[in-house]
Amino acid sequence: MQARIDFNLDLGESFGIWKMGEDDALLRCATSINIACGFHAGDPNVMLRTVERALEFDLAIGAHPGLPDKQGFGRREMALSGLEVYADMLYQLGALSAMASARDSWLMHVKPHGALYHMAEKDPVIASAIVRAVKAFDDQLILVGFSGGKLLAHAAAEGLRVGHEVFADRRYGADGNLLPRTLPGAVIATPEEAAAQALSIVKKGGVTLADGAFLSLRADTLCLHGDKARAAETALAVHAAIEGSGCALRALSLEG
Amino acid sequence: MQARIDFNLDLGESFGIWKMGEDDALLRCATSINIACGFHAGDPNVMLRTVERALEFDLAIGAHPGLPDKQGFGRREMALSGLEVYADMLYQLGALSAMASARDSWLMHVKPHGALYHMAEKDPVIASAIVRAVKAFDDQLILVGFSGGKLLAHAAAEGLRVGHEVFADRRYGADGNLLPRTLPGAVIATPEEAAAQALSIVKKGGVTLADGAFLSLRADTLCLHGDKARAAETALAVHAAIEGSGCALRALSLEG
Amino acid sequence: MQARIDFNLDLGESFGIWKMGEDDALLRCATSINIACGFHAGDPNVMLRTVERALEFDLAIGAHPGLPDKQGFGRREMALSGLEVYADMLYQLGALSAMASARDSWLMHVKPHGALYHMAEKDPVIASAIVRAVKAFDDQLILVGFSGGKLLAHAAAEGLRVGHEVFADRRYGADGNLLPRTLPGAVIATPEEAAAQALSIVKKGGVTLADGAFLSLRADTLCLHGDKARAAETALAVHAAIEGSGCALRALSLEG
Amino acid sequence: MQARIDFNLDLGESFGIWKMGEDDALLRCATSINIACGFHAGDPNVMLRTVERALEFDLAIGAHPGLPDKQGFGRREMALSGLEVYADMLYQLGALSAMASARDSWLMHVKPHGALYHMAEKDPVIASAIVRAVKAFDDQLILVGFSGGKLLAHAAAEGLRVGHEVFADRRYGADGNLLPRTLPGAVIATPEEAAAQALSIVKKGGVTLADGAFLSLRADTLCLHGDKARAAETALAVHAAIEGSGCALRALSLEG
Repeated sequence: MQARIDFNLDLGESFGIWKMGEDDALLRCATSINIACGFHAGDPNVMLRTVERALEFDLAIGAHPGLPDKQGFGRREMALSGLEVYADMLYQLGALSAMASARDSWLMHVKPHGALYHMAEKDPVIASAIVRAVKAFDDQLILVGFSGGKLLAHAAAEGLRVGHEVFADRRYGADGNLLPRTLPGAVIATPEEAAAQALSIVKKGGVTLADGAFLSLRADTLCLHGDKARAAETALAVHAAIEGSGCALRALSLEG
Repeated sequence: MQARIDFNLDLGESFGIWKMGEDDALLRCATSINIACGFHAGDPNVMLRTVERALEFDLAIGAHPGLPDKQGFGRREMALSGLEVYADMLYQLGALSAMASARDSWLMHVKPHGALYHMAEKDPVIASAIVRAVKAFDDQLILVGFSGGKLLAHAAAEGLRVGHEVFADRRYGADGNLLPRTLPGAVIATPEEAAAQALSIVKKGGVTLADGAFLSLRADTLCLHGDKARAAETALAVHAAIEGSGCALRALSLEG
Repeated sequence: MQARIDFNLDLGESFGIWKMGEDDALLRCATSINIACGFHAGDPNVMLRTVERALEFDLAIGAHPGLPDKQGFGRREMALSGLEVYADMLYQLGALSAMASARDSWLMHVKPHGALYHMAEKDPVIASAIVRAVKAFDDQLILVGFSGGKLLAHAAAEGLRVGHEVFADRRYGADGNLLPRTLPGAVIATPEEAAAQALSIVKKGGVTLADGAFLSLRADTLCLHGDKARAAETALAVHAAIEGSGCALRALSLEG
Repeated sequence: MQARIDFNLDLGESFGIWKMGEDDALLRCATSINIACGFHAGDPNVMLRTVERALEFDLAIGAHPGLPDKQGFGRREMALSGLEVYADMLYQLGALSAMASARDSWLMHVKPHGALYHMAEKDPVIASAIVRAVKAFDDQLILVGFSGGKLLAHAAAEGLRVGHEVFADRRYGADGNLLPRTLPGAVIATPEEAAAQALSIVKKGGVTLADGAFLSLRADTLCLHGDKARAAETALAVHAAIEGSGCALRALSLEG
């Protein structure tokens, strides 16, 4: 049994008049939230309001920077240069940080969103740009990324604090990657199964694969990556399971 | 003769592949620059590069936040609420501030751009939103605005430091406002005349009106607001005139 | 009792991953739909899909052009020139028309959205720009606007076909304008009351005001302008009431 | 010597206040122009004005649709689905077509821009989406693309008219592709050399490679793809060379 774990959820993904996500329910489950920064989702009003809501619930605030593509929700890979990613990261970190500091708060972590998250695993130029931007902005920020992945390996080598993220509602392959969504069973369908996987992570230190083998995973923080439609229900189930497990739910922090 | 004056110029107004302004020439004349923050002009790359150039020339860096309307260059008034202006200001201040801090620098001032500058003079809700955002972001920032105008009156009443801005290349009316551009003679056509008006400002404390009357103006900082095509030439002439006048060219600063 | 009336509803207001509106329910009630054209809402995918859905239900397709402001949903007035409105209208009309013609269909009408709709009533420059754009694009298009308003008066004088629009779920004042939403009772709260107002319009040719007086209204087409949350329910009630009234529900058409 | 050739140039690449390209000079050289459609460059005002200018010079008008990425000028590849490309193409074709028809003109051709042009050569899904969109919009439009490339092969197989495009100011490799810009000598540096390559194309039916070998190229239309800074000068030289060659400069047309 590990002593503590963070539970991070994506919030502030509305845009203008368009609402997304059951933020009110998610705020009750998370210990940390990742707030979209206006590139793939969010806008200044939404960001400020989401910061205020996070503070009401005493949650750690993190930035969720993404690609500059609202229509595609930051999920369509774009051939950005390292310099472009570096500057886009600084811009988004600064914008959200201003919202937090205007409410006497601050950023605790940063987690790239969507295609940017994936590009960082595939392309060292992107990973390096992300790490350099975080260090240049605030070298105490915790960089959250795929557990055991290349982005965090690079970040740790560069002296950044890192948070290894494991998904409660997605199945893993033997290589430690997520099974592609296109495979049947890749997305864990029920809140109960997601809760069971979360428990396995905190109690056994990993997950059971489809063939029965066990995969060890470093899990500093849990996340959900499945069906947005059931996100709130799944988050509640995961939250309750961890609460009852003896593993403390606590935000990533500098003392961590 | 006043002892010192700042000379602020708008830079970083390129966007993507599109260039605007003779930034290289202007960097040699200004003591402070206002950098577009990605709403009406600029993008993260342009902002970072402009910060770097300003630091090469040891210039004070300020934010130039504008309306969210690149096609209209922030010059088309938009019916924003106070809350929207407040959040848009925080967002832009934070984004540029991150670029500055990534280069071990900081923001010294902020000047609203274009229609936002004008809306702040006409609408107390907008003026109040701007002042609240600046205070919430960094209550040591200097707010630059129209000399003798309503935005700065409100800002000063709220305890903000202010910089009264006077234009070297625009004619004033007896009420202290600029003559509308549509009036003949409203824009000062030659660098020589702009230099003469700048000298009048620092030596006599104001400008001569069309009818020969004298208008006193508080001038913490000079700016240009005329023909972009001749901006560099005019900036050089104004810079040379002040240099030779005995009035020190120095950026606005906290000691100011 | 008037012989026929159109029932127009706004559809295709989703954007990227963000959904808006109960399009499936509304498609069953409307005879004409207004499709957002990518400026205030909609995107090419959403537009194409909405055209396809309209054709499944054999509805007349109209363009719903708006201001270039997605964050504000086209509801924030912007100081556009007549030329800008003219070009923005052509652009949006053409974009949607291409979607329709790719599915062997065509546009029957056009209705300005949000702040553009209101600006056209207040500013003859905007009204004229809209009328000129519609005529230049397709002089057989029907321009839908506020019943008895200035836009349609100008359009008719210029030889355009027009559709006078009356709202089933908003109260009118004695001057023929809608009561401002800020007034209590301005928005008709229940589907039943909206249906009653729709019946009054088709049976009596107008609506009863708060003081009991009767206001005659030319009603070529009905619309809803109240609470999006209950739009589907209200649309169903209005549709059922008209169906049962003896007044035919038929789209605006050239034979009209 | 071939009897005729088109000379197509990219115009209307300004955006808002930002100007790009020496459109006035280019209008005097081209027989066809490709007008940006507001995704990677251009806006409704710029598009309409460019259509008007093209008509003053009696030039054939074509659409130049691009990726939805103004900051990157449509040069950064994006992972779009076939459906997204199809809808984006229709949207842009329709928008520009409305500008042309408002001036009693029409589109003669369409040429994908930037990364979209390249993606169509690499990915059959993208090529197919482009071809389907053009056919659905107007099956008489001429699709312009890389000479001998995969997009045009697919388009021709689907029954579309095609225009094979050859570059006067870029060197080719033995495989018929352009040498990458990163190679020394890939961009033809002087107007004189570009004119010489243009003459070789119309007189000999191809170009001489770096190793002295000859590469045959189908050339329905010439284009420039080198240094924007010298585009006008190069265009003039190419235009003059063709004019003096005995090969007629004529726009692509349906009689083709």
